[in-house]
Amino acid sequence: MLSDIDICRNTPLSPITEIASKAGLLEGEYASQGKFKAKVSLASLKRLKQCDTGKLILVTAITPTPLGEGKTVTTIGLAQGIAKLNRSVTACIRQPSMGPVFGVKGGAAGGGYSQVAPMEELNLHLTGDIHAVTAAHNLAAAAIDARIYHEQRNGYDDFEARSGLTALRIDAKRVIWKRVMDHNDRALRMVTVGHNEPGKLINGYEREDGFDISAASELMAILALSTDLKDLRQRIGNIVVAYNTDGKPVTTEDLQVAGAMAVSMKEAIEPTLMQTLEGVPTLIHAGPFANIAHGNSSIIADNIATKLSEFTVTEGGFGSDMGFEKACNIKAQVSGKAPDCAVIVATLRGLKANSGLYDLKPGQAIPDSLFEPDPNALSAGFENLKWHINNVNKYGVPAVVAINRFPQDSEQELQMLKELVESLPNNVEVAISEGFAKGGAGTVELAEKVMAQCEGQNRFAPLYQFEQTTEEKLMAVAEAGYGAASITLSNKAKQQLADLKNHGYDQLAVCLAKTPLSISTDGSIKGAPSGFEVHIRELKLCAGAGFIYALCGNVMTMPGLPDRPAFMNLDLDDHGNIIGLS
Amino acid sequence: MLSDIDICRNTPLSPITEIASKAGLLEGEYASQGKFKAKVSLASLKRLKQCDTGKLILVTAITPTPLGEGKTVTTIGLAQGIAKLNRSVTACIRQPSMGPVFGVKGGAAGGGYSQVAPMEELNLHLTGDIHAVTAAHNLAAAAIDARIYHEQRNGYDDFEARSGLTALRIDAKRVIWKRVMDHNDRALRMVTVGHNEPGKLINGYEREDGFDISAASELMAILALSTDLKDLRQRIGNIVVAYNTDGKPVTTEDLQVAGAMAVSMKEAIEPTLMQTLEGVPTLIHAGPFANIAHGNSSIIADNIATKLSEFTVTEGGFGSDMGFEKACNIKAQVSGKAPDCAVIVATLRGLKANSGLYDLKPGQAIPDSLFEPDPNALSAGFENLKWHINNVNKYGVPAVVAINRFPQDSEQELQMLKELVESLPNNVEVAISEGFAKGGAGTVELAEKVMAQCEGQNRFAPLYQFEQTTEEKLMAVAEAGYGAASITLSNKAKQQLADLKNHGYDQLAVCLAKTPLSISTDGSIKGAPSGFEVHIRELKLCAGAGFIYALCGNVMTMPGLPDRPAFMNLDLDDHGNIIGLS
Repeated sequence: MLSDIDICRNTPLSPITEIASKAGLLEGEYASQGKFKAKVSLASLKRLKQCDTGKLILVTAITPTPLGEGKTVTTIGLAQGIAKLNRSVTACIRQPSMGPVFGVKGGAAGGGYSQVAPMEELNLHLTGDIHAVTAAHNLAAAAIDARIYHEQRNGYDDFEARSGLTALRIDAKRVIWKRVMDHNDRALRMVTVGHNEPGKLINGYEREDGFDISAASELMAILALSTDLKDLRQRIGNIVVAYNTDGKPVTTEDLQVAGAMAVSMKEAIEPTLMQTLEGVPTLIHAGPFANIAHGNSSIIADNIATKLSEFTVTEGGFGSDMGFEKACNIKAQVSGKAPDCAVIVATLRGLKANSGLYDLKPGQAIPDSLFEPDPNALSAGFENLKWHINNVNKYGVPAVVAINRFPQDSEQELQMLKELVESLPNNVEVAISEGFAKGGAGTVELAEKVMAQCEGQNRFAPLYQFEQTTEEKLMAVAEAGYGAASITLSNKAKQQLADLKNHGYDQLAVCLAKTPLSISTDGSIKGAPSGFEVHIRELKLCAGAGFIYALCGNVMTMPGLPDRPAFMNLDLDDHGNIIGLS
Repeated sequence: MLSDIDICRNTPLSPITEIASKAGLLEGEYASQGKFKAKVSLASLKRLKQCDTGKLILVTAITPTPLGEGKTVTTIGLAQGIAKLNRSVTACIRQPSMGPVFGVKGGAAGGGYSQVAPMEELNLHLTGDIHAVTAAHNLAAAAIDARIYHEQRNGYDDFEARSGLTALRIDAKRVIWKRVMDHNDRALRMVTVGHNEPGKLINGYEREDGFDISAASELMAILALSTDLKDLRQRIGNIVVAYNTDGKPVTTEDLQVAGAMAVSMKEAIEPTLMQTLEGVPTLIHAGPFANIAHGNSSIIADNIATKLSEFTVTEGGFGSDMGFEKACNIKAQVSGKAPDCAVIVATLRGLKANSGLYDLKPGQAIPDSLFEPDPNALSAGFENLKWHINNVNKYGVPAVVAINRFPQDSEQELQMLKELVESLPNNVEVAISEGFAKGGAGTVELAEKVMAQCEGQNRFAPLYQFEQTTEEKLMAVAEAGYGAASITLSNKAKQQLADLKNHGYDQLAVCLAKTPLSISTDGSIKGAPSGFEVHIRELKLCAGAGFIYALCGNVMTMPGLPDRPAFMNLDLDDHGNIIGLS
């Protein structure tokens, strides 16, 4: 079979104007960005408000291996399958981060015959949304350090006299707004900024700082959760970046930088329209990393897509404990639109990896032996799939299992897995999905089963209400959600919780950051663990995004590059074409 | 008069397809990016190779105040003036950096009725070229720290066995590739990266590092000086990022990251086409900061423009000691195309600031008193203009002085300045330029004089040849160029010079970084100083860009934000329009 980039390059694409018109957008409701991309204007939503709202299908997965189980392949493949059945459909996915593209995982355009095209444009800069988030985020960071410097250099009175501004008296030890970069760069996790040559004070005040990957920026969550530009602007102004010397929160509005941040994100709020290899309109918006971020595509993209088409297929990152949980508890409660059906992507490889019978270590290559028939391992790993089916049903969302077929998979094991699912008491539907090898033709059975599930009455219920206390909400996700026996908070987290309550921040959602490689907070525990403890080491206020961000276990918000990063394969050929991207 | 952004918004623009066709580009030679921007394909150059090459006009200036003297206004105004005379013309300018946009200076689209439009798109992300430079630059930085970490964690042998790669043995104390960010962020000038929690080694090895502003990245110079994509790829591979434990240079090619960097810059190599308020085609390419970088627009943009039109108007940043010097000594020697005429922008305000009769401090507001009539100050400051006229003539380039008129300027002083110029022995032409208030109609006289000067025989000669020794080249710029009495090198710079010679890097250009606020390296010395010393504190190898970068005096490669940054004025109004940008 050809490589992803060769398949993509050999497939004739339609001009984006045709895709836009097929999607139901009018001229003037989008602006072409080159031949195959367009920014969709939010003005379209005004016209579409009167239209019926289509069904929302949320693709999730079992607990994945570090290479992923093909969730985007299945999302795109399923959308193409629905289109094959002559129903109108739009896919909504997140913009890939350059971190994984250049790091381990490679691109995130899907693969094989189920890709968003041109995949190299999707996987690199696209229309610059992540860059805009990065720029706006780091502008606020520069504003904070500059303000501390100018206020403290000659004292607050001097600053006020000189500038005509009121001193904010930021406590340099309590700046909570880090910097961001869209790369896997472990050396930036913990840095000291503001060094000076001895005896000089020209670079500001030295303080501990760090960089997160851009997808984990609060601004990315704001982009995903905003309903319009006004909402975006208001949320940005609510961001708390530091505390002052009296312990009071300091916001971007206080820094007078919120307007400029919104200006910098003015274009990013418009989803990007592209197409799949079979011409299905696809909206790309917001960022990935459902482990360390909200990590779902945007409410705006969903709102446009569900008005334009009968079916919208979107995805939540990693397993159903990660992106799906946040899509249900955070995104759906903000948007008011619950998923009508969930698709759980499972692979033979991924389930065997969940058996606990293989010695898999994060950061190490996945052994080929995972592709060899091993019914014991499959049967043991099936517990993980069962867990995710139950998890989805907890929210009142009907589930369909999509077995994402790899070329090396044995027919016998595929049948075995199918039967295991069919033998479950929940009457859960299952289909083998061959989107990778066959495109939409390989997902028709899946599409039919998913569409049928969408017909039922929606019984959606999130695990918590925003009005509950923060502890209750954290417990809801960890215990009712993950199935943990208990949660514990570090002393730091306890103090932060008390502070947040004091400042009145107790009506927000909660967003848990943890490893995606286990349902628990320990990436080495596979399968369907129980009796574990969720340890929360730190809480962060994201008042603009509207949630309290809880760091669990040893999760890190800036990935690192491996020994042999994916970037080593990338280059331009003699004709200027990109090679080595997958 | 209306604000810049209101003038821009009230002016009807042509679709970029019409501008492209007016410029002489064929369909397929550009890709629209929204209604008013397009990326121009390098394929156009192949077709245009046979066409005549038009005249290249380089706009420079007197020694400016920190707010600038209106060089872009004059560049755009002059291009519009030439168009008014029914001659074909293209303007080529650099992409503004967000640092100044959000910092002190504001936007860089020109102003009044001589602007590139839409100015908010130019001044913010444009088509993402600076973001691509930033991303590619920081990818290499991440690659370096990751490699050091993986090689040293368990020793070189273990690394080689594990990865199948040859250890590069980078000396962590001799990494010369810093990180970059497109913001004014003084706290990032000197940082420590790779901190760890006590007893852990998961974030790499602690080392001193720093951030430059993105425009000062070697990649930005490579973007400006490359002649095609292949040249760009090759130059990127030549970048020396560090030295190994044997003191040998380590390149991006050694890191196997050069291909990925080129991939990341694949779209950035295409200039962006926009229009002036009067519909003159304008190419935007490469970055600003002719003080701390090469800082001229690109060879590719010039090559396209001079083939498309009779006249190309471009600009070099700051005074003629800065961008103009680098355009002549670096860019013209690489491209083989010398400027046919130089325009020196002078203002009454700027000349009075150069008189030495005002107590102006960098970073402080310019006093209104500079706009009051003061013939003594004007006459004293005129020495600075004389210096720049002589400087331009040194290169064999004919000069025309453009007096950029401000609304507050007195008729009497404008006449006095005109007469002062006309009384010079060099027969230099002078015109009052009213591009700001009147657009092209205000620059017709200037246009006529400039076009006439372009008719003469080109007697261009750079100040040095690449084959000379590095010392000779540095002396040529400092002494023959700036008029310094001597140059001195710090011990560090002397050592670096010896190292560079040892490694065979002695056939490169030299790129001096110094304050733009004086012809000398001391920003407080105004006018036309002589007898000064140029102190070179550090030399940096830019083997990919093709020059040795010399840091003079106390110049800094990352600006800072002032007390009241420009971002405080920026916001979105109720209709989502940007306000406060100028």
